[in-house]
Amino acid sequence: MPQLRQDLITGRWVAVATERARRPDSFTQAAKESIAARDVCPFCPGHESMTPPEVLAYRPPGTMPNSEGWWIRVVPNLYAAFRLEPDGQEQRAGRFWQRDAIGACEVLISSPDHRAPTPLLPGRQVEEMVQSYVDRYRQHARNPTLEHVLILYNHGRPAGASLEHPHSQLYAIGLLPPTYLEELEGARRFFEQEGECVFCRTIADERRAGVRVVFENGSFTVFAPYAARTPFETWIAPRRHVASFGDLDTGREKSALAEALQVTLRAFYDGLNDPPFNYYIHSALLKGNVADAWISDAYHWHLEIVPKLSIAAGFELGTGIWINVVKPEDSAAFLRERIAEGAGPPADASGARGVAPREPRFSAMRAIETSGGPGERLRRSP
Amino acid sequence: MPQLRQDLITGRWVAVATERARRPDSFTQAAKESIAARDVCPFCPGHESMTPPEVLAYRPPGTMPNSEGWWIRVVPNLYAAFRLEPDGQEQRAGRFWQRDAIGACEVLISSPDHRAPTPLLPGRQVEEMVQSYVDRYRQHARNPTLEHVLILYNHGRPAGASLEHPHSQLYAIGLLPPTYLEELEGARRFFEQEGECVFCRTIADERRAGVRVVFENGSFTVFAPYAARTPFETWIAPRRHVASFGDLDTGREKSALAEALQVTLRAFYDGLNDPPFNYYIHSALLKGNVADAWISDAYHWHLEIVPKLSIAAGFELGTGIWINVVKPEDSAAFLRERIAEGAGPPADASGARGVAPREPRFSAMRAIETSGGPGERLRRSP
Repeated sequence: MPQLRQDLITGRWVAVATERARRPDSFTQAAKESIAARDVCPFCPGHESMTPPEVLAYRPPGTMPNSEGWWIRVVPNLYAAFRLEPDGQEQRAGRFWQRDAIGACEVLISSPDHRAPTPLLPGRQVEEMVQSYVDRYRQHARNPTLEHVLILYNHGRPAGASLEHPHSQLYAIGLLPPTYLEELEGARRFFEQEGECVFCRTIADERRAGVRVVFENGSFTVFAPYAARTPFETWIAPRRHVASFGDLDTGREKSALAEALQVTLRAFYDGLNDPPFNYYIHSALLKGNVADAWISDAYHWHLEIVPKLSIAAGFELGTGIWINVVKPEDSAAFLRERIAEGAGPPADASGARGVAPREPRFSAMRAIETSGGPGERLRRSP
Repeated sequence: MPQLRQDLITGRWVAVATERARRPDSFTQAAKESIAARDVCPFCPGHESMTPPEVLAYRPPGTMPNSEGWWIRVVPNLYAAFRLEPDGQEQRAGRFWQRDAIGACEVLISSPDHRAPTPLLPGRQVEEMVQSYVDRYRQHARNPTLEHVLILYNHGRPAGASLEHPHSQLYAIGLLPPTYLEELEGARRFFEQEGECVFCRTIADERRAGVRVVFENGSFTVFAPYAARTPFETWIAPRRHVASFGDLDTGREKSALAEALQVTLRAFYDGLNDPPFNYYIHSALLKGNVADAWISDAYHWHLEIVPKLSIAAGFELGTGIWINVVKPEDSAAFLRERIAEGAGPPADASGARGVAPREPRFSAMRAIETSGGPGERLRRSP
């Protein structure tokens, strides 16, 4: 019998359709054709003039802005759906209302290497990528005209990535996103009823249940949400209660986030042969706009990875209800096994509750790491 | 400057990103490879035993159920995400709550012809297809355990169609879809403030503005919504205020709906070379469950066509805000021109307001119609 599951946070229902169940490994991607786009790639070193001038770059002292040498580079998006303008205008024609789309759209280039997705980067480089997220988040958080900052990553053409060179994106916008408001409303309701953060409770419940936990380290828990919308939907949540991603501790917590992200994406990469996915960070409203003090108690930032392994069709569009053909328990077990394979003995040797290891497991990553630090071109062959 | 537009009904914001604007005809699809799947198609005549037994068929008197001869055939979906069971069970483990997905999933086969999408069917056959929608809608509306019936059509693989043989689907479910509730809440708000149906008002406003109207006939207005989510999103709305699709008048109104649907899909087919799309019918709750009398005054059924010409990526998933790279005024003008080309002189010869013709324009359709009525195999070559 197919089942409906309700997401505790948003109240959203998902149909887990066991009738159409497919084995997790049936989602493994076919081999892709290589796209040799480096020559014309605007994100590759030497092509700095093909983008708008950089707004941030990590580069050795003494190198010129918008020249080679950087290991992280952030530039405004050339095709911006939002623009920072001093005065937003609006226009009404009867009931037809439009206003200027105020905001900033930026591209955060993850590394100089055209062919190095996050799982194949040196661990240190992933930390630098996370640092660039924090730096740009905090920069926009100071702008009182903005309400929300979304940092996201589109990987693979089916997930909407139009350029191959690995890059994240940032949207800092002047309106409140409905999906955030939906989470916030659920968090408020739970906080009023239970006096507790619904995300903290969910993380604790997931750790107790174990079956949906994919990975853990000192600061983060990676798990398949109980009401996962798509096969292999996976969340990365900090165990420390923090409402805003801007408050990430850039020492230990940053390293742990980089590790959790890399280990998880590596399990996707190895287990499903580099599947397309989107991830994004949900974070509380910008501080300048937090009128209600309860939000910092009730909301909890987190990162949601949504692989593009199924198509949202007429049913999903028409109802807002997702049909997921893989149980999140099965996708979590599959990813746990891939992580265990890459990192020594199985994490879940007992065969029982399946709680993933608490200690960092970096050996799989280290094997592909080069000796060079950030700033050097990676030596991995394409 | 990119613009934000708000949908009057749902309050949903859409960014119309003029910076990435593409000409409407840039969405024209590449030629597809023919898929010769008839031999194994479970929806083709002669293969009736490959599906569960039919729940409805239009067939000549004297033919046996589940044998050839039908011109419309409705069968339960073999891969049902919802199932009708007398007693729905639920299961709670702490805060993890699931319940049986109660409902019915059906496949409504549009015609015996494997290769005849809606725009290429004889007009009479499209009316029969609409009649099957009404018959099955009304059948499920009598079931007091169900809350909502969604009828939808997925066309093309990128839009989630797994079988080529043209077919619609019906989901009769025991829970309230969020997208419907969102519309209903907007309709309630508007009704309280303005004492009027927000859909009736929208249709009147669109007819006055004219620029987004694609087609009209005696009963229906076809238009690109002001805050269209995707390139070429198009709605078909009855001008008579009716909350439930089940109350469609199966005389003149049914014919007019079939015409509006066929003319519109034909403009997609000709203008964009058979693009993938989803459509679905949004209709009020089932009558047995309408506790609030205001719903019949405030809600208004309609059909939404959402072509799959762009990818909902990290931004859309993470915010619930859509970015549309084509202005709905431009997509409407493009479709109007295609309709005019297929039906005689341009609808908008004045070059001015662009209101589409009120009279049925069936000549393009008639040209491909066979002399045979429904039930005969179409003679068009594959």
